[in-house]
Amino acid sequence: MTGIAIVGYGYWGPNLVRNFSTVPGSKVEWVVDLRTERLEVIKKQYPTIRTTANFDDALNDPAVAAVVIATPVQHHYHLAKKALEHGKHVLIEKPMTQSSAEAEELVEISKKKGLVLMVDHTFLYTGAVRKIKDLIHSGEIGDIQYFDSTRINLGLFQPDINVLWDLAPHDISILFYLISDRPVSVSATGISHTPNGLENVAYLTVNYDTGHIAHFSCSWSSPVKIRKVLIGGTKKMIVFDDVEPSEKVKIYDTGYTVKSDEEKRKLLIDYRVGDIYVPKLEQREALAGMASDFISAIEKGTTPVSDWKVGLEVVKVLEAAQESIKNKGKEVPIKFQ
Amino acid sequence: MTGIAIVGYGYWGPNLVRNFSTVPGSKVEWVVDLRTERLEVIKKQYPTIRTTANFDDALNDPAVAAVVIATPVQHHYHLAKKALEHGKHVLIEKPMTQSSAEAEELVEISKKKGLVLMVDHTFLYTGAVRKIKDLIHSGEIGDIQYFDSTRINLGLFQPDINVLWDLAPHDISILFYLISDRPVSVSATGISHTPNGLENVAYLTVNYDTGHIAHFSCSWSSPVKIRKVLIGGTKKMIVFDDVEPSEKVKIYDTGYTVKSDEEKRKLLIDYRVGDIYVPKLEQREALAGMASDFISAIEKGTTPVSDWKVGLEVVKVLEAAQESIKNKGKEVPIKFQ
Amino acid sequence: MTGIAIVGYGYWGPNLVRNFSTVPGSKVEWVVDLRTERLEVIKKQYPTIRTTANFDDALNDPAVAAVVIATPVQHHYHLAKKALEHGKHVLIEKPMTQSSAEAEELVEISKKKGLVLMVDHTFLYTGAVRKIKDLIHSGEIGDIQYFDSTRINLGLFQPDINVLWDLAPHDISILFYLISDRPVSVSATGISHTPNGLENVAYLTVNYDTGHIAHFSCSWSSPVKIRKVLIGGTKKMIVFDDVEPSEKVKIYDTGYTVKSDEEKRKLLIDYRVGDIYVPKLEQREALAGMASDFISAIEKGTTPVSDWKVGLEVVKVLEAAQESIKNKGKEVPIKFQ
Amino acid sequence: MTGIAIVGYGYWGPNLVRNFSTVPGSKVEWVVDLRTERLEVIKKQYPTIRTTANFDDALNDPAVAAVVIATPVQHHYHLAKKALEHGKHVLIEKPMTQSSAEAEELVEISKKKGLVLMVDHTFLYTGAVRKIKDLIHSGEIGDIQYFDSTRINLGLFQPDINVLWDLAPHDISILFYLISDRPVSVSATGISHTPNGLENVAYLTVNYDTGHIAHFSCSWSSPVKIRKVLIGGTKKMIVFDDVEPSEKVKIYDTGYTVKSDEEKRKLLIDYRVGDIYVPKLEQREALAGMASDFISAIEKGTTPVSDWKVGLEVVKVLEAAQESIKNKGKEVPIKFQ
Repeated sequence: MTGIAIVGYGYWGPNLVRNFSTVPGSKVEWVVDLRTERLEVIKKQYPTIRTTANFDDALNDPAVAAVVIATPVQHHYHLAKKALEHGKHVLIEKPMTQSSAEAEELVEISKKKGLVLMVDHTFLYTGAVRKIKDLIHSGEIGDIQYFDSTRINLGLFQPDINVLWDLAPHDISILFYLISDRPVSVSATGISHTPNGLENVAYLTVNYDTGHIAHFSCSWSSPVKIRKVLIGGTKKMIVFDDVEPSEKVKIYDTGYTVKSDEEKRKLLIDYRVGDIYVPKLEQREALAGMASDFISAIEKGTTPVSDWKVGLEVVKVLEAAQESIKNKGKEVPIKFQ
Repeated sequence: MTGIAIVGYGYWGPNLVRNFSTVPGSKVEWVVDLRTERLEVIKKQYPTIRTTANFDDALNDPAVAAVVIATPVQHHYHLAKKALEHGKHVLIEKPMTQSSAEAEELVEISKKKGLVLMVDHTFLYTGAVRKIKDLIHSGEIGDIQYFDSTRINLGLFQPDINVLWDLAPHDISILFYLISDRPVSVSATGISHTPNGLENVAYLTVNYDTGHIAHFSCSWSSPVKIRKVLIGGTKKMIVFDDVEPSEKVKIYDTGYTVKSDEEKRKLLIDYRVGDIYVPKLEQREALAGMASDFISAIEKGTTPVSDWKVGLEVVKVLEAAQESIKNKGKEVPIKFQ
Repeated sequence: MTGIAIVGYGYWGPNLVRNFSTVPGSKVEWVVDLRTERLEVIKKQYPTIRTTANFDDALNDPAVAAVVIATPVQHHYHLAKKALEHGKHVLIEKPMTQSSAEAEELVEISKKKGLVLMVDHTFLYTGAVRKIKDLIHSGEIGDIQYFDSTRINLGLFQPDINVLWDLAPHDISILFYLISDRPVSVSATGISHTPNGLENVAYLTVNYDTGHIAHFSCSWSSPVKIRKVLIGGTKKMIVFDDVEPSEKVKIYDTGYTVKSDEEKRKLLIDYRVGDIYVPKLEQREALAGMASDFISAIEKGTTPVSDWKVGLEVVKVLEAAQESIKNKGKEVPIKFQ
Repeated sequence: MTGIAIVGYGYWGPNLVRNFSTVPGSKVEWVVDLRTERLEVIKKQYPTIRTTANFDDALNDPAVAAVVIATPVQHHYHLAKKALEHGKHVLIEKPMTQSSAEAEELVEISKKKGLVLMVDHTFLYTGAVRKIKDLIHSGEIGDIQYFDSTRINLGLFQPDINVLWDLAPHDISILFYLISDRPVSVSATGISHTPNGLENVAYLTVNYDTGHIAHFSCSWSSPVKIRKVLIGGTKKMIVFDDVEPSEKVKIYDTGYTVKSDEEKRKLLIDYRVGDIYVPKLEQREALAGMASDFISAIEKGTTPVSDWKVGLEVVKVLEAAQESIKNKGKEVPIKFQ
């Protein structure tokens, strides 16, 4: 039984408490939050969980083997570092940290101490993304030619990170999960409509050395909610529409074939639209899968699907994107060791 | 009665013939096309219209006062130039030409000769775009903060122009029609999946010196057809979904107000979602409005809504976008005199 | 080459003229309409077609082998009778006549004279309905358990027939095309919101002696347009949504299995939702198929898909439905020989 | 503080426990269920609530002032009767009972004992239905001319009641809440695809003596989930689509005006389609409103929105519908005192 302390009981915290309370092998020992009114909420609903405003109470409790960090991003690094230094396994909400330097330092410590360090990219545990991965790996889709994600809504503006850091981690982690190749550079644009200068609308292109690209459109200022990923393959195309209640993943048999027209010196590309197939998806809650994966990494030494590697890589893309935005779209290289 | 010669009877030509045949004040005298099988089609349907493969037949006919050019883009410049030099008024399908230098030369000639030169940006004549213009100009939407367009489908790959030159003229002309300010630079990315190197997926950001941006997402390789423009104002937001049969324009009462939270030194932005209003739109065919506007410019000297100015400006944006794509998103300045 | 006279050039007439002008083997000789302004329209568009307000002009022309009747329903019977008596083959728009007695008389005359008598139930020639027929006949759907159609919109109120006579023929003909069994009785309800007493909202259930039923919901007073047919089979279910531009037919792998629960003496029926499959449909115009079928029946003696038999059967259902509506849903038997 | 015992902890029970635990003025004292595994579930989540398989434990507890019955319908009557006889206020899940005789007996007892008797028609507490009620009562919609409800999905077949008893109570209670007039008769049809003879697809028309009608379409056998109510008024029309996440209620400015055409002896009805308006709805949980209404009735003597009257009226409609189905649509009168 792995004892868990959850730090931060805001929007996402209750989901973590609920899942770590029900997933086999884990027990929530502490919830830590500076706001006493949030601690009151948890006391009522979960009378057996201890609460505190002092992180040290949890860190010094030998019943706590792992710490889950669900605070604003600016606190991720120092809380995670402190937990690792106290010998606790650590799970951090996405994005991992505010910089790749911070993320890399955490990775170093966790390696040295032999502790699990994991980042919660929940989407990697959804039935939809799992099904898409299966489809791509089966060869049914062909070679992937583009990835186009739109994640926009009228959202709560985050006070400490821009819209790319808030929303794009979902889609970048999905891209990296589906395709093992990694991009070599990014180009991004965006705009802030608020005095704090944090972009609330932003666009990101990532470039692969194969010439392929992926594009991410993120906004907190759209009157409509769109959560759509298009994946184009040489054989078929996939639409992942997460707003759809029952038809989230559609596969389009939509190849096109190049026909040369010698006489007219033209390249004409004909298109063919074929059948559509909407597979039934596994229904289990993604967060439960993520929680189990963390527990399994701690207890059995397995490598989590959403490990520190993808967490760090996502931060690198975001960091480069930020630099590109400030230079109005200028290409910024990224290095993944 | 203005005599018209229509050059190019491909995909769009029949719509032009039908509209110039029914709009008051115009008469289609000639249809010109190099393909005899296309001329056979017109003979059957419109026995009174003369057909020829030789452009000179039409140019030398004094009954022809105006020429409408609906050929592939690469022929626009030299056909239009020839027509203007023969003293004919000219209407060109979008995009106007393959370069701004060509477009500017045509403008010069038309000015010198006192001839109408117009570009067919049909969308400016739709009930939807007209209604949006009214809404913006009434002040109901507030200051425009962003413009975000997605125009993607599984389309016929053009053999001579990339997807931006094919699809973005619609949305750039709409943007320029709605907002009188003009951008100062662009940043674009894209990819070609064909040996000819013409991008079939592309993304374009245009920057205003106010800091505002507009974004255009274009693709011939999407399995789903999307034609959606989001316009964000400080008071309300507009969604123009051209795929919707009966609810193309929706106005969202979706302002957000900044609340300062002194204690936590944070800027929090709250959102409010209000009523939605879906106005009834005027139903007349846009192309008929465009044709009438051309005839009116010739006969009464009025300035067309879709004049050479917007035609030229669109070409300038496309030209800069192309340069940016080749430099992976690098900012490229544009100059509008 | 079969010479055709088309009687009635209202809403549907132009579609008939266009199709009988382009389908191989037919030539439109006459268009007949009492309204001279309608004849003016045809003269402009089709200068080679003769027009008249006098039906006899067409009937007495030996170049006319067949008459197509597209007038209001009240004139179908006497126009068709006159045409048959003049030895012309006859195609009637749906519904065939105002009563089954009228329809049966027309059938008698056509049989005696050896003439083709056909009713235009256009839907039987759509790619969607053809695909559904194939699916059912392949056994993939299993035994059909119900058929549920909704055809509602904000429509032009017909001055001489109620909404069932106007809209239900489409769906009844589809039902009869898909399933060879015929119902034994009907029960219908409805309401008229106009002084003329013709129902503008109506509901129809048809009963089979197997216990199965089909239901039809028709309205001219719905603010939204719905054209949806659900077909439930023991193995799979079909949704035919004619408003959908590109995904009209969806097949749901949605069987349910009976599980007995001995302990609780209950019958529980579990459900399972499986994959969905959206087949590509043939794109040709249905009306062209119908026109060809009529010409083929005349020239080669083939039996049309939409023959007088389905036309008569539809009228019998409508007649019984009308009686049931007047008796507030009372079951009214139908007899098909 | 009103002490509550909840009987039946199946599908709906947890929602009742959660709401009666959080609504001010109520305290859940007991949960009663025959299934020990269900009681185990509640013990874990709500350690302070007592559980029992013996209803008498709750009835004999003076801390219990009210009983909430959420068992299968067949047990409603005898459980409610027993509770009333023990002097407890009673809230019953819909439908109230299996017959109007049973319902009337409960009403008698509750009146005699001066106890609250209420039926949980939750929809009457939704923001959507409240908004529609306001719209109708403001006169904005005009006189109501029809009400058309479709509530279909692929659902769990109930073992003891047919689909009308399961699904139609929602829509009948909405109809009765919106319009004070009551119908005089019903006509219904349906079919059972299971050996137990309980209809899984059914259609119901209710008739008013004004000539107006309402129609209900219910199915457990639809592959798609539809929850749509159309309400036609003389001025405007309302569409209530409960599957829509954010645009549940739409108001269509869609009047039609009768134009007489003297010359042609026809009644032509022209239609006009105007603007659409999508109001923002109140977001609170309907069940919390229902729970508060029950507590308020007990503590302050207020009349609940969803009182025994609507519960009894719904049962009367269902009872008559059942008789009509067995007679294949025959009109069956209903009497409301």
